[in-house]
Amino acid sequence: MFYPTSLLTEMSRIFFEETGWEELADSLNKSDYSNVFVLTDKNTNRFCLPILEAKVNQSLTVLVMEAGEKHKHLHTCSQLWRELSELGADRNALLINLGGGVVTDLGGFVACAYKRGIDFINIPTTLLSMVDASVGGKTGVDLDQLKNQIGIIQEPSFVLVDPVFLKTLPENEFRSGYAEMLKHGLIQDRDYFERLSIYRYDIEHIGKSIYHSICIKSNVVAQDPTEKNLRKILNFGHTLGHAIESYFLDHMNYDRLLHGEAIAIGMIMESELSHKHSGLSSDDRNRIKEVFESIYPKIQLQADDISYIKELLRHDKKNRSGKIRFALLESIGKPVIDQVVSDEAIDDAIAYYLS
Amino acid sequence: MFYPTSLLTEMSRIFFEETGWEELADSLNKSDYSNVFVLTDKNTNRFCLPILEAKVNQSLTVLVMEAGEKHKHLHTCSQLWRELSELGADRNALLINLGGGVVTDLGGFVACAYKRGIDFINIPTTLLSMVDASVGGKTGVDLDQLKNQIGIIQEPSFVLVDPVFLKTLPENEFRSGYAEMLKHGLIQDRDYFERLSIYRYDIEHIGKSIYHSICIKSNVVAQDPTEKNLRKILNFGHTLGHAIESYFLDHMNYDRLLHGEAIAIGMIMESELSHKHSGLSSDDRNRIKEVFESIYPKIQLQADDISYIKELLRHDKKNRSGKIRFALLESIGKPVIDQVVSDEAIDDAIAYYLS
Repeated sequence: MFYPTSLLTEMSRIFFEETGWEELADSLNKSDYSNVFVLTDKNTNRFCLPILEAKVNQSLTVLVMEAGEKHKHLHTCSQLWRELSELGADRNALLINLGGGVVTDLGGFVACAYKRGIDFINIPTTLLSMVDASVGGKTGVDLDQLKNQIGIIQEPSFVLVDPVFLKTLPENEFRSGYAEMLKHGLIQDRDYFERLSIYRYDIEHIGKSIYHSICIKSNVVAQDPTEKNLRKILNFGHTLGHAIESYFLDHMNYDRLLHGEAIAIGMIMESELSHKHSGLSSDDRNRIKEVFESIYPKIQLQADDISYIKELLRHDKKNRSGKIRFALLESIGKPVIDQVVSDEAIDDAIAYYLS
Repeated sequence: MFYPTSLLTEMSRIFFEETGWEELADSLNKSDYSNVFVLTDKNTNRFCLPILEAKVNQSLTVLVMEAGEKHKHLHTCSQLWRELSELGADRNALLINLGGGVVTDLGGFVACAYKRGIDFINIPTTLLSMVDASVGGKTGVDLDQLKNQIGIIQEPSFVLVDPVFLKTLPENEFRSGYAEMLKHGLIQDRDYFERLSIYRYDIEHIGKSIYHSICIKSNVVAQDPTEKNLRKILNFGHTLGHAIESYFLDHMNYDRLLHGEAIAIGMIMESELSHKHSGLSSDDRNRIKEVFESIYPKIQLQADDISYIKELLRHDKKNRSGKIRFALLESIGKPVIDQVVSDEAIDDAIAYYLS
């Protein structure tokens, strides 16, 4: 399976596989960086850093953070800022973020705000961060239980995408990234959604699919970088999905639910909202549920869980003037934004998922 | 004394006095802000907020932080982010920063990083923040004892400058701002430096002088927004001055030293460095010391103080590859950047100030 070696737009510079490694080497050779730092978490430090080190012929100063969503927090940023200061990092330092979305989102914010901004490069190592965090320039960390409450929008110098890192990825992480790819199909390309439902995460097709997903997202973001209009379609499944994700993050007695797994649930619920509110046919709605249920395990939610999730919904940063707005579907491949739905419709959507 | 009512450049929009209040009213009327927040400190809440409220015919939600440099800290940002979340601030909220440099620097960062960025307007209420923080888009907070270690560069929607706020300003605050104005003369305009030495802070001339200072700074920043070259001249007096300021902030047994008071000391020291290193004549050097000593009280420094200050110097964020670089003067009005000086020269410069 072949696909292009780079995707260069006004907003983002993404290089794939060998072309990416060449770009990285070039950048390190040509640029007058005073120091090159690599941010890893405990997992990528073990599994991915050796791959990076084998490719880069230069001394790297490695920073390690704890792995997992609950460390995507301002406290972690403070620790890293302190560490960078102690290591003498100046404004001409470079930060390479090697990891999943937690590392790239948090590391991006750390770089943007350290001494008013140093260069950074993202090397996503999970499927989710390759297809989602690699484009759009969102950086951010959580504040208490509110996701991505703190952050800014800034593109990295470039992104290096290499599926080689997926070889050591656990299945639930793979499934999590796949949800965003399925979403790209749902909001822009019905055929792609159907192809993904057949390929599952067949490693032979994954490079090409990643490229296609990045193209879809990149195309949307380029048309609306600051999320005033079109970009909101990327939030399909995310309004309810984020609330569910926050809820699980906050109640650790449950097994951990990964971002994409929560978004998959959100997409089933929001396809029911779309059916009731924006004309999605029952065939399309049923097809969406069928595909997701074939990949993602069903989660049980009790009445208490549901009322807490609805409370979190009201804090979503996409709300405007107190109203919860959804990105929904008119049909598979055709999204519609800024949909305000009733409280009862939300209850029905949750019930539909549970049914 | 008359001067223009606004200064509009590609980078900044600054409106003065009545024109500023009209712009603010227009902006609040035309824009679809979901909520208007005002950040004050305990002083501006008491002395300046009533002036703002009398001018604005709209409900404002007021946030209050503790006054003073030591609260320009990431903890304060977290508190404010939490407060904004609890008050339901969404991405279409506006934040008006009403206060000195601590409030505008910190409030700017709070706005830029809240939900990946909300609009903000700065209304500086001290002389220092009018002439310094009002242009250049620097936002920032301290990390431990390192000044402005965390922040980003982003211009506010606009800045409203009205000397009316100076009427309640204590003399040491006035003196602090005046140091930056004297610096503008030293780096760009000898006549202005001499005029300022005569006017002192005569309220009749202050509006025009503020305008002139803002023009000088704005002109420098426009030519080099990201501080690669020319903008560094604004750091005259700041390399040693910042270290002195940090030192006093960290050792609260001393009386408090305001930013400009520390920079004034830094400028005397760095004029001696300029004399030894970059050709500043002894006449110019002596004139600088004479003017500053006529306005600013002398501070005593012991051997212990000096070695701590030199330690802080090494952490300055303007350092590059471990070397401390100074912006110095060739003559009054003619600066030179990126000057590396010896350790002994720094000792001599400190001794010169103390002599």
